[in-house]
Amino acid sequence: MNETNRQVVLRSRPSGLVADENVELVETDVPALGDGEALVRTSLVGIDAAVRTWLDDQPGYLPPVQLGEVVRAATVGEVVATNCEAYQVGDVVTTLGGFSDYSIARDDLYTTVMGRMSEGTAGIDRAGLLAVFGSTGATAYFGMHDIGKPQAGETVLVSAAAGATGSIAGQLAKAAGARVVGLAGSDEKCTAVVDDFGFDACINYRTADLRAALKEQCPDRIDVYFDNVGGPILDAALGRLAMNARVVLCGVISSYVSGEHPGPANYVKLLAMRARMEGFNTLDHWGRFDEANAELRRLFDAGELKYRSHVFEGLDQAVPALNALFEGTNIGKTFLRP
Amino acid sequence: MNETNRQVVLRSRPSGLVADENVELVETDVPALGDGEALVRTSLVGIDAAVRTWLDDQPGYLPPVQLGEVVRAATVGEVVATNCEAYQVGDVVTTLGGFSDYSIARDDLYTTVMGRMSEGTAGIDRAGLLAVFGSTGATAYFGMHDIGKPQAGETVLVSAAAGATGSIAGQLAKAAGARVVGLAGSDEKCTAVVDDFGFDACINYRTADLRAALKEQCPDRIDVYFDNVGGPILDAALGRLAMNARVVLCGVISSYVSGEHPGPANYVKLLAMRARMEGFNTLDHWGRFDEANAELRRLFDAGELKYRSHVFEGLDQAVPALNALFEGTNIGKTFLRP
Repeated sequence: MNETNRQVVLRSRPSGLVADENVELVETDVPALGDGEALVRTSLVGIDAAVRTWLDDQPGYLPPVQLGEVVRAATVGEVVATNCEAYQVGDVVTTLGGFSDYSIARDDLYTTVMGRMSEGTAGIDRAGLLAVFGSTGATAYFGMHDIGKPQAGETVLVSAAAGATGSIAGQLAKAAGARVVGLAGSDEKCTAVVDDFGFDACINYRTADLRAALKEQCPDRIDVYFDNVGGPILDAALGRLAMNARVVLCGVISSYVSGEHPGPANYVKLLAMRARMEGFNTLDHWGRFDEANAELRRLFDAGELKYRSHVFEGLDQAVPALNALFEGTNIGKTFLRP
Repeated sequence: MNETNRQVVLRSRPSGLVADENVELVETDVPALGDGEALVRTSLVGIDAAVRTWLDDQPGYLPPVQLGEVVRAATVGEVVATNCEAYQVGDVVTTLGGFSDYSIARDDLYTTVMGRMSEGTAGIDRAGLLAVFGSTGATAYFGMHDIGKPQAGETVLVSAAAGATGSIAGQLAKAAGARVVGLAGSDEKCTAVVDDFGFDACINYRTADLRAALKEQCPDRIDVYFDNVGGPILDAALGRLAMNARVVLCGVISSYVSGEHPGPANYVKLLAMRARMEGFNTLDHWGRFDEANAELRRLFDAGELKYRSHVFEGLDQAVPALNALFEGTNIGKTFLRP
């Protein structure tokens, strides 16, 4: 075991993308174990849009990371010492370990429940635990299952389709028998969306005439739009809704960094189309993670659910890793390996 | 029976408010009856926002009124001649008779179903047939019952609260045990909303600091927002939503005339609040008008449902009557008496 514990701590709050001076890589002691605690050595830090939101001084579903604190993120790791019965040495667990070589797993809301998520996931590699069976897959599942409700033959549009959540959301809709169209920001991503994730089509929104492309790829209009981005893409999708359509508000990645939230003028289509736009939050559904994981596992074992990983190597890559989602460079789930 | 039939026909399409030259009052013959038809003498023409939308050359849930055609509107009238078993002379019926002294009731989608709405409404005066038991009351019912779903103790906000639909929507929420707050455009309207329609409070959005007033009048935030107006009021309401709130999109009266649809930037609150915004259309629910009317009748008989009428006298008042909803002059249901 290393005697030092490297951690990335927050030094100042970023405005927009994270800058080098916003964080610092520090060395501290490996934490001592209290009763009911286990020491986890981080294998992979999972990076999703929430990680960036926690750096803002805004109330959210978790409190902001305070200056001087470790940058919070979900992690997968291995128990290397234990002072409780819940975890045994060698257990692979997921927790909110953050950008850190080591973290403590203990019996509180986040670590305990996330730890339990590794149950029923035998044979899944460590990246898959976060890419599919962590909150990423659960987010795709709750959004599609509870709000999107795709039916066989319907058309489902997914933005950020090459991303961790979008790629799974689309595959869930595909498994339900829908025609699934993705939106992504490069031809390389579009190829991955179709070839790796099995979507029926993918539109490069940076080069396409979005309105014309939606008309071409969604000839029967859009029954479900799974929105990860907001902004003008949401507006365009609203303009192409089918009757009784469902818009799943999963994220507003276009505004996490810019802070701007242009309103979708086409919201009026919700009225004309008797359609619904609804937000949700995965954390509301902790109690149903077993349900989500069971369905994800079933599809995974059937070969209907693929994931890809994009791994940044080393804690000194924290800044590019944190910005990757917003710079649009990644395909699949973004990780940092300490 | 008059030998002539005065009608208001569309001559040119209005841009914004209806101008004198857009319509013409003409005299034609009283229509001859075919098989299965009845002649209805119009008692009152009911005017709602849909009437104005039908004058635009836009596909909608009914086809646009063509140039030279009678301006379409729901009417209540009396059968004065009949050539079918469905209607007897003296029957009071509601139909889409338009701005006309006489119209034909026959066995097609709109007239038949609207005619049947007069069943179960014995003892209701003719204005009430359209103000409560026509599509106005049904719109309020379906929006509140199917989407808003107000619960006892919740806070319900209704815009255009002094209007025909809003006043009923608020009373339905009040009957469900909610705290009901209205928005209206004058102190006189606000007084009517509270004193006549029994809302707990009403905000004059023209004079109030809207954000501060919503905070004061909705201390527990807004669980249901019944939106008749869109625009900046919708945006302000979205900014005050409670967790799991429901926004009922009933109309966009602010844009029917202006044609502008500013997007609500606060739609992002739907995500933070796990809230829903949903449109609906009363015409989808023809088959459930009996259900709506039964509940409206129950409340009406219990004294929990009041309506007010604003009557324009004479077909030569068609233009001010058509513009009344958009000029904000009316309280309650707007009628024209031919």
